[in-house]
Amino acid sequence: MSKEKTTSKAQASKSKLKIIPLGGLEQIGMNITVFEYEDSIIVVDCGMAFPTEDMYGIDCVIPDTTYLRNNLDKVKGFVITHGHEDHIGALPYVLRDINVPIYATRLTMGIIENKLTEHGMMETTERHVVKFGQTVNLGAFRVEFIKTNHSIVDAAALAIYSPVGIVVHTGDFKVDYTPVFGDAIDLQRFAELGRKGVLALLCDSTNAERPGYTPSEKTVGQTFDILFQEHKDTRLIIATFASNVDRVQQIINSAYKFGRKVVIEGRSMVQIINIAQELGCISIPENTLIDIDELKNYPEEKTVIITTGSQGESMAALSRMAESQHRKIRIGPGDTVIFSSNPIPGNEKAVTNIINLLLMKGADVISSDVHASGHPCQEEIKLIYTLVQPKYSVPVHGEFKHLTAHRKIAKMLGYDDDHIFILQSGDVLSLDENSASVTGRVQVGDIMVDGLGVGDVGNVVLRDRQHLAEDGVVFVSFVLDQYMGDLVAGPELTSRGFVYMKEADDMMVEAQAQARDTIEADLGKGISDWTRLKSDVRDALSDYFWKKTKRRPMIITTIMEA
Amino acid sequence: MSKEKTTSKAQASKSKLKIIPLGGLEQIGMNITVFEYEDSIIVVDCGMAFPTEDMYGIDCVIPDTTYLRNNLDKVKGFVITHGHEDHIGALPYVLRDINVPIYATRLTMGIIENKLTEHGMMETTERHVVKFGQTVNLGAFRVEFIKTNHSIVDAAALAIYSPVGIVVHTGDFKVDYTPVFGDAIDLQRFAELGRKGVLALLCDSTNAERPGYTPSEKTVGQTFDILFQEHKDTRLIIATFASNVDRVQQIINSAYKFGRKVVIEGRSMVQIINIAQELGCISIPENTLIDIDELKNYPEEKTVIITTGSQGESMAALSRMAESQHRKIRIGPGDTVIFSSNPIPGNEKAVTNIINLLLMKGADVISSDVHASGHPCQEEIKLIYTLVQPKYSVPVHGEFKHLTAHRKIAKMLGYDDDHIFILQSGDVLSLDENSASVTGRVQVGDIMVDGLGVGDVGNVVLRDRQHLAEDGVVFVSFVLDQYMGDLVAGPELTSRGFVYMKEADDMMVEAQAQARDTIEADLGKGISDWTRLKSDVRDALSDYFWKKTKRRPMIITTIMEA
Repeated sequence: MSKEKTTSKAQASKSKLKIIPLGGLEQIGMNITVFEYEDSIIVVDCGMAFPTEDMYGIDCVIPDTTYLRNNLDKVKGFVITHGHEDHIGALPYVLRDINVPIYATRLTMGIIENKLTEHGMMETTERHVVKFGQTVNLGAFRVEFIKTNHSIVDAAALAIYSPVGIVVHTGDFKVDYTPVFGDAIDLQRFAELGRKGVLALLCDSTNAERPGYTPSEKTVGQTFDILFQEHKDTRLIIATFASNVDRVQQIINSAYKFGRKVVIEGRSMVQIINIAQELGCISIPENTLIDIDELKNYPEEKTVIITTGSQGESMAALSRMAESQHRKIRIGPGDTVIFSSNPIPGNEKAVTNIINLLLMKGADVISSDVHASGHPCQEEIKLIYTLVQPKYSVPVHGEFKHLTAHRKIAKMLGYDDDHIFILQSGDVLSLDENSASVTGRVQVGDIMVDGLGVGDVGNVVLRDRQHLAEDGVVFVSFVLDQYMGDLVAGPELTSRGFVYMKEADDMMVEAQAQARDTIEADLGKGISDWTRLKSDVRDALSDYFWKKTKRRPMIITTIMEA
Repeated sequence: MSKEKTTSKAQASKSKLKIIPLGGLEQIGMNITVFEYEDSIIVVDCGMAFPTEDMYGIDCVIPDTTYLRNNLDKVKGFVITHGHEDHIGALPYVLRDINVPIYATRLTMGIIENKLTEHGMMETTERHVVKFGQTVNLGAFRVEFIKTNHSIVDAAALAIYSPVGIVVHTGDFKVDYTPVFGDAIDLQRFAELGRKGVLALLCDSTNAERPGYTPSEKTVGQTFDILFQEHKDTRLIIATFASNVDRVQQIINSAYKFGRKVVIEGRSMVQIINIAQELGCISIPENTLIDIDELKNYPEEKTVIITTGSQGESMAALSRMAESQHRKIRIGPGDTVIFSSNPIPGNEKAVTNIINLLLMKGADVISSDVHASGHPCQEEIKLIYTLVQPKYSVPVHGEFKHLTAHRKIAKMLGYDDDHIFILQSGDVLSLDENSASVTGRVQVGDIMVDGLGVGDVGNVVLRDRQHLAEDGVVFVSFVLDQYMGDLVAGPELTSRGFVYMKEADDMMVEAQAQARDTIEADLGKGISDWTRLKSDVRDALSDYFWKKTKRRPMIITTIMEA
């Protein structure tokens, strides 16, 4: 009794809201943020990241959720802001250990369910579709979904009501007064929350370096009308993001207006447009969409192909067209290819390569000013702060340079340094009504997914792959007599990725002799420890190859007994 | 006698000037162009290219010069336009086979000589320094060096006088009316040549997509003055291209004006500035340059560090500073780091990574609008055409998209398609006074340099490196009885870069059993052919690993007899 009383008294004075990003800072991707109050945890988003350049062979990266596994009893659910991979992509992996309900808006849930179906997890996953304005109770928290605008339909901001105050998480958003589908961002609700009093604002930083306002998605529709008008005599091939349903809608609108048939090409885009159609998030006039095999029935200039591959992804439909690998579409001088996208940082070279290939085939290519971002520029960020008036500013969703640019904006709006928190993934930000500070850290990290393996490729394997990629590998094997320890066969040398064996015969013969001399010298000295034998062979060959080639192939030695 | 007569008569009517790019088209880098008339060949530039992303372990790429080796008697010399790596970098390799004189302006030759010294080739290489306005005779050709402006001092355009007419090669250039060092581009000479009549113009396409004019290098100096004025209280660290002597000059000018001492850091920059000082291409006030070890003797805000690494190169001085690996310089909140450069396409991500690291250390980072390009924008290209008025247009120096943008400009200036030649590397463009056409192709290609090896890493080795990087390698070895053919030891399995062996014990044991079963089944069936044994083991393991992991490691089998 007395214990309980003490606890509850201590809690009354001591309990804090903890905000713990497990990813999504230091990078764009892998967004996942823990909100914890006493024995309640909710998790906002559960995204993946694309592998960095040095992560050879890795398919995607997901967050280390050890902290959630260690607090499994507390976790009430995943609350998802929108259906982009960097916000939902890790769900099929993380749900295996942390099987709690998912809360999301209609299209977001549609895309999640598509993913769960692919992983055979529909039966085992509890799902709740939430409407804008609706509030869900999750332990100590209530979470309200607020309409925003973004480059995907049905994006939500969240008002998270906790015992110490309201936290607003914007998700990824922009301010679009004239959206293509549905309503404009619910600025009134942001204002009402601001009037009530908001403890902290977690706000999108992606475009915080850019002055001004992000243009409305509708401006891209106007551009399409002009482009369709200007290119009445050629086939149009338009590449954009698979999940940008509004963009596809606008291309279809222009196509309908100019009497063109539309083909949608690329697996992920076909899937998402199907889901959007089922949910009524896109409206396609009858007799507009045709199958790719029907293209031949129409004059080229009466067709549009909407396709994936706007980022130069090597396996996407547009890349296959550019490289003459597409089974149904040949690009030629009669084509105008439009990139309705900007390259995501890091993809510039891949996009340029595709553009060069398309131009070489004689196509016309239009690659600038046919896109509008889905993230807020500086003036939009200021607008949200001015409506919400949070006590504390927590810039999220960005690399460090975006977060620092966001901090500059907050400071212009009058926030002191001690009311702005640039967190690192793993930081524990503890808040109550009157204070906020980073009070600790939890385990975080990148879990690499490669084929069926989740986390089995770690730093050791990755370092080996980097070494193998750089200078290749030389295998050495030899056989020792089981009783006498004499060298009875080998050493045999085989290399891959090091030198072209056929032209390096002399060197490999000499290397073999070096290896044999080393082994026999060791055996002659009575050295029979295999670890020592292996390391002596490795050192001898490594020195020899460095001298001859200035390369350091990985050297692997196998000893057998016969 | 009669034979000679016929030949000479045929030549009079038949001889053409051939222009053969051996590199530099389809890419920015590896510039080298052959000019051939009867038994005379001159080679303009001899550059290297940086390896593309999939060229694992490769240091640089040089052109295949088989065509020159096959016509060695004809080759009169290398004529070099300027001292950038993509115009001179392959010389030390190509000169080994094609040891002919080099002609270049002062600083260009200084940089080449630095390179030759490193390769121990000074004694064996004939070198001629040429002044602007000077003409050199090379077989059937005369070559005049014409002053231009570029992001390196002493850049030259070439007027190549051939028996069928004058060809102007701009080299890399911009039009700078107010250059930092030396004269403005010699537009009068371009005009005079135009009046005489120019057969063909080979003109820089790098910025052909950009409207307007490239600003003068001096505008960057004005920016430096403003930045020095605004950052009087912090140390300045300014990163730029090692070879941009004018840029370094302007930083030194501002430093002197604001009473700061200057450190130059980064091996390549130190080398080039030393050469520039020796040749009088840079003027440094006394007591301005200090050694890096003297930094501690001055207040931080009275110092500037000019450094390499503006492209995020992993081993450059700035990267080492950002990663706390630099032995003498620590970055902190008292530092302002200025990137006086734009990222070269493909380097965006690397540059961003460095910026994030610098910001995390508390430094202020300025990375935009402190640079001026060294290449001509659209209006400058139009100016050169209008002065030179060539009969034929040959866009050079660019990826295909730049060359096509250049073609659009030529068409706006009134050139027909059949007077514009977008060549591919290897194309033979044959010209005489009245005609031009592509008449053939010669061998071209990328020769990869890796350590001491030139060309020994080819497509096979590269494919192996890519395979190894993607999924790693499994090495299988076993021993057969010399007489009976029985399996007497092994199979032993070792993997690298595939799975973390310690956590994949069970799988590797099972794989070993699979390999053993396969070998014994083959031997039981009387199969003793080693090639067959190896391929059966490879297939069995490959299937097994794919089923278990959805990965396809390289599998290499060694069989020994004992």
